[in-house]
Amino acid sequence: MLGKADTTRMYNELSALKNFNTCPEQEGITRLLFADEEIMARAYVKQRMVKAGLQVTEDTIGNIYGTLVGSQPELAPVWSGSHIDTVRNAGMYDGTVGVIGALEACRMIRESNAPHRRSIVALIFTSEEPTRFGIGCIGSRTMAGHLSLEQTKSLYDDQGISLFQELERLGYTKMDYGAVRKKKGDVFASVELHIEQASVLERLGCPIGIVEAICAPTYIQVTLEGQQEHAGSTPMNERRDAMAAASEIILKLESLARSHGNNHTVGTIGKFCAYPNSPNVIAGRTEFTIDIRDIDETVKQDMTQKICAYIDNVAMLRNLRARYTVTADDLPCVSAPPIIAAITASCEKRNIPIHKMISGAYHDSLMIAEFAPVAMIFVPSRGGISHDPAEYTSIEEIAAGTEVLADTLLSLSNMNEMGEAEQ
Amino acid sequence: MLGKADTTRMYNELSALKNFNTCPEQEGITRLLFADEEIMARAYVKQRMVKAGLQVTEDTIGNIYGTLVGSQPELAPVWSGSHIDTVRNAGMYDGTVGVIGALEACRMIRESNAPHRRSIVALIFTSEEPTRFGIGCIGSRTMAGHLSLEQTKSLYDDQGISLFQELERLGYTKMDYGAVRKKKGDVFASVELHIEQASVLERLGCPIGIVEAICAPTYIQVTLEGQQEHAGSTPMNERRDAMAAASEIILKLESLARSHGNNHTVGTIGKFCAYPNSPNVIAGRTEFTIDIRDIDETVKQDMTQKICAYIDNVAMLRNLRARYTVTADDLPCVSAPPIIAAITASCEKRNIPIHKMISGAYHDSLMIAEFAPVAMIFVPSRGGISHDPAEYTSIEEIAAGTEVLADTLLSLSNMNEMGEAEQ
Repeated sequence: MLGKADTTRMYNELSALKNFNTCPEQEGITRLLFADEEIMARAYVKQRMVKAGLQVTEDTIGNIYGTLVGSQPELAPVWSGSHIDTVRNAGMYDGTVGVIGALEACRMIRESNAPHRRSIVALIFTSEEPTRFGIGCIGSRTMAGHLSLEQTKSLYDDQGISLFQELERLGYTKMDYGAVRKKKGDVFASVELHIEQASVLERLGCPIGIVEAICAPTYIQVTLEGQQEHAGSTPMNERRDAMAAASEIILKLESLARSHGNNHTVGTIGKFCAYPNSPNVIAGRTEFTIDIRDIDETVKQDMTQKICAYIDNVAMLRNLRARYTVTADDLPCVSAPPIIAAITASCEKRNIPIHKMISGAYHDSLMIAEFAPVAMIFVPSRGGISHDPAEYTSIEEIAAGTEVLADTLLSLSNMNEMGEAEQ
Repeated sequence: MLGKADTTRMYNELSALKNFNTCPEQEGITRLLFADEEIMARAYVKQRMVKAGLQVTEDTIGNIYGTLVGSQPELAPVWSGSHIDTVRNAGMYDGTVGVIGALEACRMIRESNAPHRRSIVALIFTSEEPTRFGIGCIGSRTMAGHLSLEQTKSLYDDQGISLFQELERLGYTKMDYGAVRKKKGDVFASVELHIEQASVLERLGCPIGIVEAICAPTYIQVTLEGQQEHAGSTPMNERRDAMAAASEIILKLESLARSHGNNHTVGTIGKFCAYPNSPNVIAGRTEFTIDIRDIDETVKQDMTQKICAYIDNVAMLRNLRARYTVTADDLPCVSAPPIIAAITASCEKRNIPIHKMISGAYHDSLMIAEFAPVAMIFVPSRGGISHDPAEYTSIEEIAAGTEVLADTLLSLSNMNEMGEAEQ
């Protein structure tokens, strides 16, 4: 068991990251992938990694690796990382707690002089949030082999700039894109520290959650085309209103998700644009993104099929043209028992109560699970609020999670094999 | 009866206006109030007015008057005008047909050397569309005494620029704002030529519509505040989703308007914004504008009351905070029988079938009606499409409307009094 995390050091780092904000006039934080402020935030963390004695490298999709070299660096390393990009007008803890937590864990291990055979790597994964290019986990998705350089040419931001153009601008395309890809065996284990983003731990008064499974999202991009017409002179029964049609679909998605009556089947439409978006013009076109999540892939597929059939039906009844594309359909994952055991052992030694749970939010660990054993450590979110400026976890709660993370990484770094966890 | 309108001259002018477009990359036309292109379009029409022998003046809200001076200029003038601003991605006929039509009518009267006692004024009214500042008929509304200089300080565009700031930038605030105001008797009669923006005339095969009444809009600006939260980790039954709540309101408005089962009671939500508008974030806030129109003020008031009560109810059931403001509630108007008679007489002489109808769309004439007798002449809209790049009326149809307008203006300019039309 290692000692205590340095709360002052961590708090200063989290506060420093908070100031890299594209929209400082807002209450919250906006740090979009490869915006100037995000690039400055990357530089800041890299500098902190170097100061902590980590060897810093990058790959061609922009993932950052800070390696605390072990006594047997030829062995597959142990990973811990998260992300520093944000949704728009976000809080200051989502992702950053896992990045600064991994950095602090490496420092704790280094400062303790505890022997560790495997290298321990603190990572920043590129763009876990889908904010800028409409697809999440860009860095870890590329590692898992699900995003080719060719595909980055067809991912555009709201200004019509492609991810490929950004990679080119920043010099990444000069490097070997294929080298980002990881295969089974390359990584011994991966543990991610994260805020819960729901209120289960708070309600239970439990400081540590151990994630046994992660829900995966399915994204469906929908466009409805009706007829843009005058809001005064077009009678109700002659309209082909893309706004009213979208409203039916939004409410159907809500009722489909509610019908399961559990906490992990969810459906959301959070991004919605109407055109031409004028008060006195019937919307001729609406575009929106459907987000469906579940721990069970068959439930996700069933909901996807039902909402798409409903869209077709609404389009037929209202004489609209509907187009939809499933832009992501990720597989849910389960955590590796040996990692759960290592986390549990640390909590027992530290006398910290734990709660085993599933994660409704997806994380980079979902992608990492395709090539390495994973698990996650959750710390409480006040009021369950996340993706909002009011997001809050106390520095003491973050420190407790970091201490458990550090014990776990150290334990894993000296482990010989994880046979049964290979999935 | 005057002769023929010059279709080449009119077509060239309408085509010239089409090229003053802020967004030339779009299929349609966007000319927002006081954008560079709108200012250039104003300059172009003023130059055409001067060339036609009209005396050009402006007032402090930017209305433009081109006066064909009569033999008794001390008498109250006859007006005809419309607007050159547009909705976003608009067609090329809405408003412009009434401006170029009035200009051509003045030219026809001047070129005919027909005597006319009253002056005849071709007008451009400032910003009939609510596109930039969220409120329509800015120029004619000010004439009717419903928009003070103080109030222009609280009308903002999407960039946070106020109408007052724009008036100041362009030097208008140096002039006497109160002088824009018109009182009963200042204007003898006003006739507006406009495209129908619906498909009634096309279906009847009728080239001229005479507007007997104009529906007036009520605008309600709504903000729903729920809780911005993570789309994955927030269970369905814990959500305060401002997007789903708005969807219920959109569908309720539609069913309220449909329940009247006529062609002139309409309800539309065409402008809708969600925040933070990210695919994986539950909308914490939505903002939208409700547009309700009818020929009957009591029906509008009833619908307004019902939809506001429904908003309150949805907010209560979903635990949201709802705010709404009625930003405009204009009175429907009826046309002056002597003007209708003059239009009818011209059509009879020219052997043109007419259809008497109501206007679902509102126009500057709605505001002018508060201080002068008004009527409108409609020409057909192909497919009833308007506020869309596909908006179309043939130049021959526009010329026919212009010829009837010219006869009507000439007839009114030599009329002594319109006692019964004073309303």
